[in-house]
Amino acid sequence: MTDSISYAAVVLERCDLLAGFSEEDGRLTRRFATPALGAASDAVRGWMESAGMTVRRDAIGNLVGRLGDPDQRTLLIGSHLDTVRDAGRYDGILGVLVAVTCLERLRDERRSLPYAVEVLAFADEEGVRFGTGYLGSSVVAGRFDPAGLALPDSDGTTLADAVRAFGGDPAAVADARRDPADLIGYYEVHIEQGPVLEAEGVPLGVVTAISGQTGGRIVFAGEAGHAGTVPMRLRRDALCAAAEFVTALEAMARDQDGVVATVGNVDVEPGARNVIPGRVVLSLDVRHPSDSVRESVLARLRERADAIASARDVEFEWRVGKGTRTVATSSALTELLAEAVAASGHSVVRLPSGAGHDAAMVSTIAPIAMLFVRCAGGISHNPDESVTVDDVAAAIDATTRFLELLG
Amino acid sequence: MTDSISYAAVVLERCDLLAGFSEEDGRLTRRFATPALGAASDAVRGWMESAGMTVRRDAIGNLVGRLGDPDQRTLLIGSHLDTVRDAGRYDGILGVLVAVTCLERLRDERRSLPYAVEVLAFADEEGVRFGTGYLGSSVVAGRFDPAGLALPDSDGTTLADAVRAFGGDPAAVADARRDPADLIGYYEVHIEQGPVLEAEGVPLGVVTAISGQTGGRIVFAGEAGHAGTVPMRLRRDALCAAAEFVTALEAMARDQDGVVATVGNVDVEPGARNVIPGRVVLSLDVRHPSDSVRESVLARLRERADAIASARDVEFEWRVGKGTRTVATSSALTELLAEAVAASGHSVVRLPSGAGHDAAMVSTIAPIAMLFVRCAGGISHNPDESVTVDDVAAAIDATTRFLELLG
Repeated sequence: MTDSISYAAVVLERCDLLAGFSEEDGRLTRRFATPALGAASDAVRGWMESAGMTVRRDAIGNLVGRLGDPDQRTLLIGSHLDTVRDAGRYDGILGVLVAVTCLERLRDERRSLPYAVEVLAFADEEGVRFGTGYLGSSVVAGRFDPAGLALPDSDGTTLADAVRAFGGDPAAVADARRDPADLIGYYEVHIEQGPVLEAEGVPLGVVTAISGQTGGRIVFAGEAGHAGTVPMRLRRDALCAAAEFVTALEAMARDQDGVVATVGNVDVEPGARNVIPGRVVLSLDVRHPSDSVRESVLARLRERADAIASARDVEFEWRVGKGTRTVATSSALTELLAEAVAASGHSVVRLPSGAGHDAAMVSTIAPIAMLFVRCAGGISHNPDESVTVDDVAAAIDATTRFLELLG
Repeated sequence: MTDSISYAAVVLERCDLLAGFSEEDGRLTRRFATPALGAASDAVRGWMESAGMTVRRDAIGNLVGRLGDPDQRTLLIGSHLDTVRDAGRYDGILGVLVAVTCLERLRDERRSLPYAVEVLAFADEEGVRFGTGYLGSSVVAGRFDPAGLALPDSDGTTLADAVRAFGGDPAAVADARRDPADLIGYYEVHIEQGPVLEAEGVPLGVVTAISGQTGGRIVFAGEAGHAGTVPMRLRRDALCAAAEFVTALEAMARDQDGVVATVGNVDVEPGARNVIPGRVVLSLDVRHPSDSVRESVLARLRERADAIASARDVEFEWRVGKGTRTVATSSALTELLAEAVAASGHSVVRLPSGAGHDAAMVSTIAPIAMLFVRCAGGISHNPDESVTVDDVAAAIDATTRFLELLG
């Protein structure tokens, strides 16, 4: 496999080329069913055909390239072609192109697989245009709610009209679910979007689970007052309560392995230099690969917020939803993937995915496995997204071995 | 002095009447040189004349009612007639009306003072229209910068034009300074705007100083990142640093008698639930009646912010100005005032003013004394501002005795 670098170079060249298909000059934005997405989809179709695949677009607009006989059970390999606004060039795209390139390589080397493979290039995962996260994979998983077809974008175009304009068939979307009986599993390569692999000094990570997450808001309500005239002992400062909570949350998360807990936003009312804060709203985001750990952290955070509020004679409201549950990867597929990574000469680092992925949606119809690729500084959703040719070569090696081991 | 309640009732009736002179329907807003301010000024002129005063408006539009011979040295008693937007009916106004009523009462009781008194009803203290805080008293103190005449309001009217339309003389404003040699001192009655007197259970407070104050901003800059993918140990969360600082600031202020320290606003960037805060800007407000205490608190806060930032590998910037220095009240006048409060049958509670007042400006040309009146809940700059007739009667009693003791 000395030529994996040259395959990786092709993948990076194709990522650069796709980055040119954008709705906006000077930055990469490629939303669902736009001409930019259509152009990217057509380019990928060409590479799929070169790799010998039979290519079609499904009812929602996902590109599906198939290799293998119609009666063979199928491994799905996918990721998405759409982007956030002002995106990087690897999130989603890299996974699609690594898949196509691995199949090209197997063909170049005259190796064939004893099962069918379909590469899925999802038309919408980010949901920027219609607010429909995981749209492409939800259709494949049969979890799309047809009520969503009436959603308008910011110009008033409905999702149904956009699907039609993109060459899809809104009426067929609800029935596009893949039959689980036909599927061996689903595999996805994605940039890590975090700094763990970089910190560990390894190119690849084997994903153990897609962590469940809970989000919400916490309100502390005290009493506003004049910053000059109310002595400290007579204050009921909502921000001091909130600050104590943020500090407690950080300590609690640091104390328990694998928990990430974040207050990403703070709203202070009235929010003037010379007025004691009367009301503070904190956002909350808690994730862990074990649902029970996540739930126990949330219970303790709530107790802590309650205790802080009581001690300070301020009110608090816990506006926190149920959250999404953790999706486990298939242990059988994941062990094969770990074996493939090790056989490629890399340490096997296992880690949960703190971000959501199409794999979570497809897990409802097939066992899943995911491979993370190190990205510089853990940066994603940003033009600074970056991967190295060596790391992409490692992903190609490991993926090719995984496909063969699966045989 | 059994009839002080009836004088207090008159004061409250007049406060209610002046509250009707507003720029806005349904709420009290009375900015500098507006028709509403002119109407309030005219009403006060009538009451001044009833009390036997000779009344004029000075070059900026302050109303000046004089009682006494031209060659007598003069005690100034003042406060302001303008308001913030959606104001209460006592901030400023109460001080003017208590002064007028005390002089009316002395006349009713055929008592005269062996010095002249001038009641100053300042035309602008809040500075809402032109951003000119203390405008009226700055003219009296000779500290008005004529460059300010070019300032526009939100409609593009300049201060000079507004002064002219209000019947003043922009050319004479710079020379309107009162000669300190003619002045005995300056006395001001004002609602406390804080909860201390209410907590102490007393109607009146003797002001020891107008506290110096320092304001500014503190910036913590860490690194933004995905809330799901960056482990706690690899984070440089700017909000966690800021929260630690807010908690430290509160503890430090509670620990040192008389210090008030406030973070009134927080800006978080990028400010999304699922993004680790990369940059946080905190507002800062620190006050204490001793400048050296205030400065030492600020120095310790800065050290603490630095230590927090270093320990967390985040950057910090200390954008904090020099602030304003504390203005002491005259010990001679203040002792007389304390004696008057005690003689009126009330405990003498001494407290600094954490808010600024016209007295601070006038202190540059005359010794000052101030009397605070308890207000419900310490609330000010709000329609809920409230005082009781008993407390206003106490202020009238104490002020009348003060004027006599000064004789």
